[in-house]
Amino acid sequence: MTTTLQAPPLGPLLDDIVLRHRPERESGSIPGNIPLLAAVPFDRFGIAVATTSGEVFSAGDAAVPFSIQSISKVFTLAMALRGDSTGSLWSRVLREPSGTPFNSLVQLEVEHGIPRNPFINAGALVVTDHLMDKAPDAAARLLQFLTAQASSSGPAIDEAAAAGELANSSRNLALAHFLKNFGNLHHSAEAVVENYVRQCSIMMTCADLAKAGLFLARAGQGTLGPVLSPSDAKRVGSIMLTCGMYDAAGEFAYRVGLPGKSGVGGGILVIVPGECAICVWSPRLDAKGNSLAGTAALADLSDRTGWSVF
Amino acid sequence: MTTTLQAPPLGPLLDDIVLRHRPERESGSIPGNIPLLAAVPFDRFGIAVATTSGEVFSAGDAAVPFSIQSISKVFTLAMALRGDSTGSLWSRVLREPSGTPFNSLVQLEVEHGIPRNPFINAGALVVTDHLMDKAPDAAARLLQFLTAQASSSGPAIDEAAAAGELANSSRNLALAHFLKNFGNLHHSAEAVVENYVRQCSIMMTCADLAKAGLFLARAGQGTLGPVLSPSDAKRVGSIMLTCGMYDAAGEFAYRVGLPGKSGVGGGILVIVPGECAICVWSPRLDAKGNSLAGTAALADLSDRTGWSVF
Amino acid sequence: MTTTLQAPPLGPLLDDIVLRHRPERESGSIPGNIPLLAAVPFDRFGIAVATTSGEVFSAGDAAVPFSIQSISKVFTLAMALRGDSTGSLWSRVLREPSGTPFNSLVQLEVEHGIPRNPFINAGALVVTDHLMDKAPDAAARLLQFLTAQASSSGPAIDEAAAAGELANSSRNLALAHFLKNFGNLHHSAEAVVENYVRQCSIMMTCADLAKAGLFLARAGQGTLGPVLSPSDAKRVGSIMLTCGMYDAAGEFAYRVGLPGKSGVGGGILVIVPGECAICVWSPRLDAKGNSLAGTAALADLSDRTGWSVF
Amino acid sequence: MTTTLQAPPLGPLLDDIVLRHRPERESGSIPGNIPLLAAVPFDRFGIAVATTSGEVFSAGDAAVPFSIQSISKVFTLAMALRGDSTGSLWSRVLREPSGTPFNSLVQLEVEHGIPRNPFINAGALVVTDHLMDKAPDAAARLLQFLTAQASSSGPAIDEAAAAGELANSSRNLALAHFLKNFGNLHHSAEAVVENYVRQCSIMMTCADLAKAGLFLARAGQGTLGPVLSPSDAKRVGSIMLTCGMYDAAGEFAYRVGLPGKSGVGGGILVIVPGECAICVWSPRLDAKGNSLAGTAALADLSDRTGWSVF
Repeated sequence: MTTTLQAPPLGPLLDDIVLRHRPERESGSIPGNIPLLAAVPFDRFGIAVATTSGEVFSAGDAAVPFSIQSISKVFTLAMALRGDSTGSLWSRVLREPSGTPFNSLVQLEVEHGIPRNPFINAGALVVTDHLMDKAPDAAARLLQFLTAQASSSGPAIDEAAAAGELANSSRNLALAHFLKNFGNLHHSAEAVVENYVRQCSIMMTCADLAKAGLFLARAGQGTLGPVLSPSDAKRVGSIMLTCGMYDAAGEFAYRVGLPGKSGVGGGILVIVPGECAICVWSPRLDAKGNSLAGTAALADLSDRTGWSVF
Repeated sequence: MTTTLQAPPLGPLLDDIVLRHRPERESGSIPGNIPLLAAVPFDRFGIAVATTSGEVFSAGDAAVPFSIQSISKVFTLAMALRGDSTGSLWSRVLREPSGTPFNSLVQLEVEHGIPRNPFINAGALVVTDHLMDKAPDAAARLLQFLTAQASSSGPAIDEAAAAGELANSSRNLALAHFLKNFGNLHHSAEAVVENYVRQCSIMMTCADLAKAGLFLARAGQGTLGPVLSPSDAKRVGSIMLTCGMYDAAGEFAYRVGLPGKSGVGGGILVIVPGECAICVWSPRLDAKGNSLAGTAALADLSDRTGWSVF
Repeated sequence: MTTTLQAPPLGPLLDDIVLRHRPERESGSIPGNIPLLAAVPFDRFGIAVATTSGEVFSAGDAAVPFSIQSISKVFTLAMALRGDSTGSLWSRVLREPSGTPFNSLVQLEVEHGIPRNPFINAGALVVTDHLMDKAPDAAARLLQFLTAQASSSGPAIDEAAAAGELANSSRNLALAHFLKNFGNLHHSAEAVVENYVRQCSIMMTCADLAKAGLFLARAGQGTLGPVLSPSDAKRVGSIMLTCGMYDAAGEFAYRVGLPGKSGVGGGILVIVPGECAICVWSPRLDAKGNSLAGTAALADLSDRTGWSVF
Repeated sequence: MTTTLQAPPLGPLLDDIVLRHRPERESGSIPGNIPLLAAVPFDRFGIAVATTSGEVFSAGDAAVPFSIQSISKVFTLAMALRGDSTGSLWSRVLREPSGTPFNSLVQLEVEHGIPRNPFINAGALVVTDHLMDKAPDAAARLLQFLTAQASSSGPAIDEAAAAGELANSSRNLALAHFLKNFGNLHHSAEAVVENYVRQCSIMMTCADLAKAGLFLARAGQGTLGPVLSPSDAKRVGSIMLTCGMYDAAGEFAYRVGLPGKSGVGGGILVIVPGECAICVWSPRLDAKGNSLAGTAALADLSDRTGWSVF
């Protein structure tokens, strides 16, 4: 149940969230193998809320672009579902949580190359491969989509960062070749990983990400018309809730109680169905790879607004 | 977002659900190692809805008692949280989905005997052990709780069924001894498993289960007063959504979009926050161990009422 | 190839081995959950060689009884094979190495309760269960066998130690119930574990163990007549070489090059086919659970005598 | 113990082995993803024995070249050890059996990219990478080595077969990228896999393979001088015995009792320490990927000659 308590107006509330949660000293970790991400100052903190009534509230570094990383997976999934009238995607990827990280490899083996869900890397590679069937440059298509939904020319692929990340993509290449081995990749492993890395290297602000994600809070209705059917929009939300926070989806559902998707760039996109889309960003990560300050801020915001699906 | 569409009134709607979903011929499977459950006729189908406004609607075999099995885990978790002001339970069990079934054993080993969540058997054994710290006969306490919440003298432990199930409890005994080996069981493995099996062997009707689960739709407010704090009630809901349907939690969230907990007796308890608690029952199971007709009925009901947390 | 180099005569050689390898200060670890074993002084070191020509050489603490623990598995396997003309044992347990320790649980699950080999605990429990089909007190039968083969009244079950170990047998009880769950145990889990623990609690000296194991170096020919056929004797040797040293079988084959079986009591029984049986004992263990000084002594002895099967 | 029984002279014995074991009708399986191997007629069967006294006996199709596949791993390991005076190879690969096939991936993950042994594919890729440190074209160097040891110009890389196999190398590429991800590969994943595949695509006859492997039966002494120290030769034998037959090493040790290494081309190289090297070849495989007729022939030969290390 989503109820709006007698919370303070959103503008001042977000300012207060920034005051309370912007890191004052360095803590948390930086992403292991993406050098450019490590260079972002630890005290960056931004938050933006785009409401279904058309307003956008923001505070802190909400206008500073950051690397969206795995948040891209929400949008590529939506794009794949939009064009997938026959449901063929769901024969190539499941919709179940994956348990502990190393299980995903055993799972791929035991379940013959069908990833557990579209938000683990193996699953996102399959989604990317699916998109490439229609447009080989899936990353460019994602950029167009984000630009349109955010009504902003801000989003851009950081090609230098993408090149750097591609040079450190051994694990994703391993997954892609493993999927190929099971016949669950149509395009070359190298091409799929390159597209995937470029999707992850899109730079966006909190404000633009909240606007771009708003269709998920609006039953699939996007900026320029329908993006997804109401039921597909709900379903993306359910996958975010059960699988969106790496190995901490349960903990996030428990503390925040809202569908969310994080990225190792420090961003988290959260949906309050019928109400708003929220994007928070702070670059340092907890042990599970989710934004440390961002997660705490969302738990606080959820408590103070009563926003929760439960 | 939970919205009540222009659905038909609940009474006729439930009648129609029974008409459409009561199995006409045998399909699905029967629980492998619990002989008594296999004896239940395949065409049993009941449904009941208890609303937060105090009404109870029901249809079909909603007054026929069945074995609640793992639905008991929702209630034992609530009882454990109620008495756990220090949060000590959460140092003994996690809140994350467990992935594929056999991962749970690897997970227990790699994570040193801390079960992934309270709804897999290993986790429920820990919860039972936790309850036994206060009352050795935890099953009797659970029965009292259910009787009180349902305002009904109907719930009863089927001791003969429990004895039969106990004689086929090798797997649960293995889990309990394994937990004991890691120091995560205070009582004897045998006593904990016996209590656990007796909890599972409680017989209840759909109507009583819906009434007993209503506190979860009412922010923790039970029949006789508060059962849980609003935040703990939300949190039980989040664990139901992410972990409540064995290895099909993601699929259920995707199709039904509501927190639920199933049992191999064929029952499913579902919460619509702020609205109602639903219990459906039909004894034959799908490949993941959830009621085949029950799951289909809930997806249908969710579509027709618009009930969904997403 | 087993070649006797121009080694010094065995008596002085063993004295020198004791001089070089008896620990002067405490190092290595003590068995985690068997209190009595921890009480053995760290500087105990004994070695004995029983030759196929009938001589027995020994040095150091070769006359001090110690707990044979898993060395018992060689003898129970031999006893099971002796009475198993139909080969039924091999339908219940495999003969393959098990890889890393936690794999054994996954393996049991994936391979439906058939243990990888008779020397991991799960496999030894099946062997014990197999022996109990003929004689419920399998531990007493093992004691008779050892007494006869060693021509010694020394071997004895330390019933107090067995009782202490039984009280800490959660892991073995978990394995036994798990095997029971798969239908791969005829007797009760509790009875099998009790028998198994009593087998492990037999106290013997290095000299007696070397004599008792001599039939494996003599193509199956025991003290009082044939124990095994020549081919079965070879086969027990092959299982010792591939599976006899827990997760260090490969390392032991690499360094020592002889079939061996260790126990957490610090003993190691080694076979030089056609030549002799060796037993070394020193109580402190390496990270894999094998005697630290004992393994080093055997590597040294193998280098100086040329004894190796490769 | 290796004893030569009163066996018939080797020449007639091998002729009889061919008579008994050459397949008369098709059975067993063909390698899944290597099309060229599937084209070899099912009734090919060859055997050759090269003795330490310098004789070579052969029968059947012993002069027909076949694809050595994973038998190459014995020789690349020997080459790597020969040049590895500091033992650096053993910091990059272990020497333990790997258990069930899918464990190898979990193992790589849990043990941080250190393969279990040099004979699983992950381990062989590390060995190849190690060789490439000295000579980028490691496959050409292996060919030189085999040519020299066999004193034959017969061995040749089948470059067309290699190209075909490379086009189906997704799984090996996945492993190589995974190793790279853990920092356990110096060269590019693509280059290492290409070299590896070309090593596997070497065509040789039974007679040449037996001659090439003779140094392992002769304490490291090769055709043109020492290849390995006696202790390293023994150690390669120990790794063959514990890890040489995929997931059937224990079964092979049990039935044949000799160090062996198989390839999916249907060849098996076996060492009788101090006596001879044996190569048998027949293309159809058992469920574990070892030559069906070849394994049976070796078990028969071992029984009739008494050759066994146990």
